[in-house]
Amino acid sequence: MSKISMTLEEIHELAKTCFLANGCNEENAAALANTVFTAERDGSESHGLFRIPGYVKSLRSGKVNGHANPSAEHVTPAVIRLDADNGYAPLAIQRGIPLLAEATKAIGMGAMAIHNTYHFAALWPEVEALAEHGLVGMACTAYKPRVAPAGAKKALMGTNPMAFAWPRPGHPPFVFDMATAGKSMGEIQIAARDGHEVPLGTGLDAEGNDTTDPNKIVKGGALLPFGGYKGSAISLMVELLAGGMTGERFSFEAQKLDVPDGGPPRGGEFIMAMSPALVAGADWEEHCESFFATLHGMEGVRVPGQRRHKNRLSDAPRNVNAALIETIKGLVDSAEA
Amino acid sequence: MSKISMTLEEIHELAKTCFLANGCNEENAAALANTVFTAERDGSESHGLFRIPGYVKSLRSGKVNGHANPSAEHVTPAVIRLDADNGYAPLAIQRGIPLLAEATKAIGMGAMAIHNTYHFAALWPEVEALAEHGLVGMACTAYKPRVAPAGAKKALMGTNPMAFAWPRPGHPPFVFDMATAGKSMGEIQIAARDGHEVPLGTGLDAEGNDTTDPNKIVKGGALLPFGGYKGSAISLMVELLAGGMTGERFSFEAQKLDVPDGGPPRGGEFIMAMSPALVAGADWEEHCESFFATLHGMEGVRVPGQRRHKNRLSDAPRNVNAALIETIKGLVDSAEA
Repeated sequence: MSKISMTLEEIHELAKTCFLANGCNEENAAALANTVFTAERDGSESHGLFRIPGYVKSLRSGKVNGHANPSAEHVTPAVIRLDADNGYAPLAIQRGIPLLAEATKAIGMGAMAIHNTYHFAALWPEVEALAEHGLVGMACTAYKPRVAPAGAKKALMGTNPMAFAWPRPGHPPFVFDMATAGKSMGEIQIAARDGHEVPLGTGLDAEGNDTTDPNKIVKGGALLPFGGYKGSAISLMVELLAGGMTGERFSFEAQKLDVPDGGPPRGGEFIMAMSPALVAGADWEEHCESFFATLHGMEGVRVPGQRRHKNRLSDAPRNVNAALIETIKGLVDSAEA
Repeated sequence: MSKISMTLEEIHELAKTCFLANGCNEENAAALANTVFTAERDGSESHGLFRIPGYVKSLRSGKVNGHANPSAEHVTPAVIRLDADNGYAPLAIQRGIPLLAEATKAIGMGAMAIHNTYHFAALWPEVEALAEHGLVGMACTAYKPRVAPAGAKKALMGTNPMAFAWPRPGHPPFVFDMATAGKSMGEIQIAARDGHEVPLGTGLDAEGNDTTDPNKIVKGGALLPFGGYKGSAISLMVELLAGGMTGERFSFEAQKLDVPDGGPPRGGEFIMAMSPALVAGADWEEHCESFFATLHGMEGVRVPGQRRHKNRLSDAPRNVNAALIETIKGLVDSAEA
């Protein structure tokens, strides 16, 4: 795979140009470009430039509104419903997080239910943004059925990511952002291409049998949750929060109702925030830092989020996929033509 | 193991008599006995009569206050701090849940941080109690270090259970209650006794190496979280909520500060509640029931909580461990002597 070097500014510029050329107004294009930029900056390539063709497909098909004007409604002092106006999630999140942070700092607990939106990115940016306000953040979304619940033979849940951040003033937050599927369908496809088996517990074949053959999972089978029946419970919790708590489509509904244009389905995002200063009291920070000191001091320990935070420190150019850049430039040219 | 038959009323009566004889006042004894009763009723034997000797040890040593008078403070309309007065958690929970439910029904989100307490039971009773109010509940506690975070060689987290309930008016709630350790130390001890290996990923030996030998895990080793590095992240989240969000002892602090009398260490419990009626809107119930109908209709699916809810329907006598009953009766006699 041939690589070329681009500065982060060039990546941001290319992304924004492409979104502007394909039906976004300035605000939506800037918010989407920022999502691509932060993903590439942090080395999360699967959520950066790689997603632009998918974003563009649903802008071109008219499924997603590039001129979305998200609006928030305070249902109670702790609850915000955010109508994303049929747009991609980044602009809604950009407008909503300060409102959620303000509410949570005042009352200790807050929830934001984003509906009428299309989420196609990582979740750590929104929970890290809450952590920058000194708040604990949790976020989750659903998708389309890809993952079978424990014991079942067919998929019901999406790969259903969940992110969590704990604030550490003066340090990057403790943060994780993970699919509740054991592996992604992309990983299974790579194993199939390379002729490798996958471990039992990775997925099911089309008849719902356990299999180690990635081809059988890809061809009409289902993924399994991480961690067996316990991970299945977590994945179901994410499905309930992302669909049930937002009032938006569950994965099985998104599948039925989606326009399959190559972009993401409509779905909800649920974001929750908590103030440790109000819930735990004034000395929360010192207390928690004693825990983090112990954690980080452990031999061999792998603390989630650290790789991203390390990548973030570098403003050096990034090596990006040359063919992907040509594709994106083509999406600019073909839109302008 | 010889079994005898006892009615649920006899189980409740024996438990209450034992707690009264060993230093509890009426209210604390009744709350603890109710915890034992509900566990036995639902077939959760490891949290029922089996725990009475441990409860009694810490009552007799004076570590736990059998006359505790838990008191709640409303920090904000959404946040309750509940001082359990150095007592066992059940009476604090019994008093606190109605307050948390009331706050959450009014404002949509609520948190209760229980501190100065000793938790030695399952978590599903408190989240199911919230579900009976039409609320989503989540609860977690820490313990003492038993589980190593991903990559590390030593234990840091407790077995750190987390429970979650989603209300289904007219049906038992969707509920799970699970340790974030892959297996309990009790299961490892049984494998050691029976000469069985355990799967890789179950635990570490005293030097921090992966092992399939349960004896090496038991002798100074550590358990591992369920589900590898993803389960490790969940376990760390539980540790942060149970310790950091309550301001109570993290597992590593509980280990240092505990009086090792055979009962549980002091620790916090964090309970969170959310109102789907306020966050998702009025039609939340119909929407979510369409999801549950799909879930329960899947061939082979194992929905968490179902076994307990089925056991609960029977008021037939339970078969309980005869030797354990003798032990408990002995704890009554030796206290009264």
